[in-house]
Amino acid sequence: MFHFHQLALEDSESRHNPKVDDYGSYLFILTHGVHPESSAREFRTRQLTLFLGPNYLVSLHREASRSVELTRESVRKNPRLMADGPGMLLYRVLDFQMDLYMPLMENFQKRLDEIEKACFEATTSVILRDVFDLRKALVRLRRFSGHQREILLRLSRREFALVDERSAIYLRDVYDHLLRVTDLADSYRELVAGALEAHLSIVSNRTNEIMRALTIITTLFMPLTLIVGIYGMNFPDMPEFHWRRGYLFAYGLMVAVAIVMYYLFRRRGIFRSPGR
Amino acid sequence: MFHFHQLALEDSESRHNPKVDDYGSYLFILTHGVHPESSAREFRTRQLTLFLGPNYLVSLHREASRSVELTRESVRKNPRLMADGPGMLLYRVLDFQMDLYMPLMENFQKRLDEIEKACFEATTSVILRDVFDLRKALVRLRRFSGHQREILLRLSRREFALVDERSAIYLRDVYDHLLRVTDLADSYRELVAGALEAHLSIVSNRTNEIMRALTIITTLFMPLTLIVGIYGMNFPDMPEFHWRRGYLFAYGLMVAVAIVMYYLFRRRGIFRSPGR
Amino acid sequence: MFHFHQLALEDSESRHNPKVDDYGSYLFILTHGVHPESSAREFRTRQLTLFLGPNYLVSLHREASRSVELTRESVRKNPRLMADGPGMLLYRVLDFQMDLYMPLMENFQKRLDEIEKACFEATTSVILRDVFDLRKALVRLRRFSGHQREILLRLSRREFALVDERSAIYLRDVYDHLLRVTDLADSYRELVAGALEAHLSIVSNRTNEIMRALTIITTLFMPLTLIVGIYGMNFPDMPEFHWRRGYLFAYGLMVAVAIVMYYLFRRRGIFRSPGR
Amino acid sequence: MFHFHQLALEDSESRHNPKVDDYGSYLFILTHGVHPESSAREFRTRQLTLFLGPNYLVSLHREASRSVELTRESVRKNPRLMADGPGMLLYRVLDFQMDLYMPLMENFQKRLDEIEKACFEATTSVILRDVFDLRKALVRLRRFSGHQREILLRLSRREFALVDERSAIYLRDVYDHLLRVTDLADSYRELVAGALEAHLSIVSNRTNEIMRALTIITTLFMPLTLIVGIYGMNFPDMPEFHWRRGYLFAYGLMVAVAIVMYYLFRRRGIFRSPGR
Amino acid sequence: MFHFHQLALEDSESRHNPKVDDYGSYLFILTHGVHPESSAREFRTRQLTLFLGPNYLVSLHREASRSVELTRESVRKNPRLMADGPGMLLYRVLDFQMDLYMPLMENFQKRLDEIEKACFEATTSVILRDVFDLRKALVRLRRFSGHQREILLRLSRREFALVDERSAIYLRDVYDHLLRVTDLADSYRELVAGALEAHLSIVSNRTNEIMRALTIITTLFMPLTLIVGIYGMNFPDMPEFHWRRGYLFAYGLMVAVAIVMYYLFRRRGIFRSPGR
Repeated sequence: MFHFHQLALEDSESRHNPKVDDYGSYLFILTHGVHPESSAREFRTRQLTLFLGPNYLVSLHREASRSVELTRESVRKNPRLMADGPGMLLYRVLDFQMDLYMPLMENFQKRLDEIEKACFEATTSVILRDVFDLRKALVRLRRFSGHQREILLRLSRREFALVDERSAIYLRDVYDHLLRVTDLADSYRELVAGALEAHLSIVSNRTNEIMRALTIITTLFMPLTLIVGIYGMNFPDMPEFHWRRGYLFAYGLMVAVAIVMYYLFRRRGIFRSPGR
Repeated sequence: MFHFHQLALEDSESRHNPKVDDYGSYLFILTHGVHPESSAREFRTRQLTLFLGPNYLVSLHREASRSVELTRESVRKNPRLMADGPGMLLYRVLDFQMDLYMPLMENFQKRLDEIEKACFEATTSVILRDVFDLRKALVRLRRFSGHQREILLRLSRREFALVDERSAIYLRDVYDHLLRVTDLADSYRELVAGALEAHLSIVSNRTNEIMRALTIITTLFMPLTLIVGIYGMNFPDMPEFHWRRGYLFAYGLMVAVAIVMYYLFRRRGIFRSPGR
Repeated sequence: MFHFHQLALEDSESRHNPKVDDYGSYLFILTHGVHPESSAREFRTRQLTLFLGPNYLVSLHREASRSVELTRESVRKNPRLMADGPGMLLYRVLDFQMDLYMPLMENFQKRLDEIEKACFEATTSVILRDVFDLRKALVRLRRFSGHQREILLRLSRREFALVDERSAIYLRDVYDHLLRVTDLADSYRELVAGALEAHLSIVSNRTNEIMRALTIITTLFMPLTLIVGIYGMNFPDMPEFHWRRGYLFAYGLMVAVAIVMYYLFRRRGIFRSPGR
Repeated sequence: MFHFHQLALEDSESRHNPKVDDYGSYLFILTHGVHPESSAREFRTRQLTLFLGPNYLVSLHREASRSVELTRESVRKNPRLMADGPGMLLYRVLDFQMDLYMPLMENFQKRLDEIEKACFEATTSVILRDVFDLRKALVRLRRFSGHQREILLRLSRREFALVDERSAIYLRDVYDHLLRVTDLADSYRELVAGALEAHLSIVSNRTNEIMRALTIITTLFMPLTLIVGIYGMNFPDMPEFHWRRGYLFAYGLMVAVAIVMYYLFRRRGIFRSPGR
Repeated sequence: MFHFHQLALEDSESRHNPKVDDYGSYLFILTHGVHPESSAREFRTRQLTLFLGPNYLVSLHREASRSVELTRESVRKNPRLMADGPGMLLYRVLDFQMDLYMPLMENFQKRLDEIEKACFEATTSVILRDVFDLRKALVRLRRFSGHQREILLRLSRREFALVDERSAIYLRDVYDHLLRVTDLADSYRELVAGALEAHLSIVSNRTNEIMRALTIITTLFMPLTLIVGIYGMNFPDMPEFHWRRGYLFAYGLMVAVAIVMYYLFRRRGIFRSPGR
């Protein structure tokens, strides 16, 4: 019908990164909208192809597209919107697409807050899966929104003659929203990495504390156990056995050793936490 | 009143990154000032929208703005400032905004110094929260000041016709201040990461030292305990029991084993600190 | 025959990065195709040199080239393709080369999925080799596809007069495919690093849990062992030995110590997992 | 006197990053020279403000400036230098400033060599402080020299009409020196990070070796201690007690267990170092 | 003789980064060639200064220069080379310099292969030194080859009028070779970092396995030792002592405890490797 280039039609069929190509008499815009089932655990997109001509805007999509649906809805309610030309229609589609990012970003923020809290409280096994999934979703989000942002930058700075001045101003606004999305995605990646690092530090510090407890107990009881072992030997002529209340001497020896160990621990700073 | 573009008014309502848009007859400048409750623990900003026209400067803000207040104050004291034109007024607002960064940066510096000192002294649990909060605040500070700096770069290099030459020179000065802020933020991030790394190294080293102590004690006392255990066995015909002062032989054996263990430890370098 | 520059011929003999050089009357294009034995374990390439003249396309290769073979095949089937000129022939060769990346990328994706799953399940020794090989392959993939992409960017934006407009549009499409390849390679590198990090966190956490078990057992049994050791001493006049059912007193003492230790552990939080 | 811009004078009073501003009839150059007390432990700078006019060079500084002093000295010795114009004077000041970087860079190199050597030899506590201070000094050095380099780049490529051609060539030379300083600072940061990483690997490996020793001793002696414990039990009718030389049977059992443990250790590879 | 600028002569005396300066009537080219004693353990360079005039090429070097020697040799063999002009002579010198990189790169590749293999096999102490030296050499290699590459880029894209078109094509070829060198250096740095990371993971995993062995042995033998300790107590009226074959009861108790411990270990997954 519109004699679109074969390459463009092929591209719209298979999975691609967002991009915009100028075919002279029309623009071929391949975008990715947020999939309705996207979450902070799994970021998914749905491909939407748009052809912007001098007096038409054609959309191609395999699955339903919420932004196209919403644009159609608003045109039905207010038919005068058609008079604004195809550039403004394109803006409306991309703006609706953008709006659908917002609940997702809040989902990410909520998940990150949970992870940050959990890092100081929960066990590793619970956190690691969440951190892993969130990171993976953020890598994808960053990738798609980055490409999408680039498209909007090119559309809004009037690189293409088919985009009129008024639409460019509006598209610039969509660009600014996407800039915020990619910005937040970068911050989230840094913060989730920091949260994981904090958690691992806590684990490593906890190991250190447990080791200290083990070492104190072991080095305290081993000499005592040796002493009682000595007096458990069956040499009939050990002098202590023939002393009156020789066992009190053994008790005294044990107390003395315990006190000496305590002072040794103290001087070597084993009771103090790491970091001298 | 001023017939500002609907998009600009919408943007000033919701949360945005700092940006500047040229609407031809006026500039739309969205900035973020330091929130009075900002600290090195939590960096918060307050959005301030400015419209710079050929002969007016309009400010829009939901919450009170200290920089607008201070500018109004100085104009009231010295009404001749109005004669400098709206560009200089814009400079004054942005300069006051900039001045409010300064106590915050000192707060950050102080906090960083504390953390650096604590890293060599305190326990992990105390430090980690602080490091985490400081990093988070620095990520936000870097993000906002970076965008703010970009605005000032664009204003000061006279990209927009509405900014007169004199104001541009003054705005360049604000830009230089912001450059220092983002610069410091980057340094702080690097230094706080280094401080955390140092702390973790100390913890890991301390674990190593404790392990060494545990190993020395265990491997020294285990053979001795075995010896006393042997002579604790109830075999009536063990020859040592029938020797005169056989227990002295047992003592001698224990001393000999202790000496041998000591030399083994020494040769294998277990007494030496890590790093051979 | 074609009087190609000596440097170009020398370059085509030895191993080089992909590149394109303009020799005025012809373009010298050195590309790397995916080696048929390439896999996610080892990424290998095969060098292919192309000379694009105003009315010819010459290919030079030491080993068989699948993309040249496929192009020749399609020209034999449809001889009219020759009429499209050498630019479109070049496109066909590079497009076939590109198509051969696709099964490899799926191989990478599959391998990454396996590693991600294994990181939460398998032992380190199994994973590390795989991670190491995958990373190495990704470093190579990224390097070659990055250079290849740059060539296609230069060809498609008509930097060279020898590339006609129609071919440029088609080459732009190959460029977009390569962009996706390098993009995916970067994502994969980030994800494989994240997977390894997750695995190491699990190992470190597991060590912590084992240490805790060891510490609990040791600190519980050592005092009990000391008590039984005390009553194993051979002092004939220890009062407990002369008590009726004195051994019940020893048992009671042991139970009391175990209960005290249990409460001490609990209060110091040793039963709780790391992360307080 | 010279009617310098109020902003420039204000800037020269407070602490700023190095920068150069063109005020039309003069250049305002704010530089940082190496403080005489700077070392690889603490990098400090001293601010020096220069105003370059068509026929004058004015320097403003709160503290004494060694480079200004040295320039004055050389002019006093060779008054003809004044005839070269203010551009060459500027070069002389900046070149002297540059020269004062050199002993500092040697200081850094020496310190780095010490740390690299210590990493393979000394204990962590000694190294960490040094690494920390060196890193901090390098962050500062990189920051100031980077800004300083940018000034010289702008001065030497004749961005400003006030710098004559001859001076530009000489300033280019100062720029090349600063490029080497920033280059070295970057290398040093990478090398000091590598040295720390090497040290931590040694500590972690050493912990592993100590653990191995502890495990071998514990698992060897525990079964032996159990055996002697068994024959220390006071059951009168244990058959071994009534065997002739029953204790030799106990000894044999212990030797047998020790041999079995040894082979078990060997087969499980516990004697081998990590890395299978 | 040639009235070279004093600054250029001074620069050729002291140590500098590779650079090229245009002095109008001649080019001042400061390059670094590979030192004959360079290896993957220590990358060293030798400074070579070249002055390219309209009809001369002057080389200045303190130490012998292999590339100058080789150029002189080839000119002696084939005096017609002089007719190609100084640009082609410059190419020959830089090309010989480039050729001397090749054996070094192979040396690096060989060393990296050794380290990669060792990481999965050898002990840490052997590897760390090698990794450290290789990294240091790569940092230096990357630094010098990067600067050298920049010079060749500037020479080959005819930024300087003194370089004729033919020479520029040849110099472009040297540039491409250097691009490969810096590319490989970057890959090597990434791979050596990956190899070290793999090695440390193996060490950390090995520690975990050893800890598991220690924990299993300790928690198995401690209760058994307690039991034999109990029956080693000297309470004359312990009922078990008066049972017929009471010691068999003790043995039974020990076997029962061992079985219970085994099932506890199994249920808590202590026998399984980390990663659940």
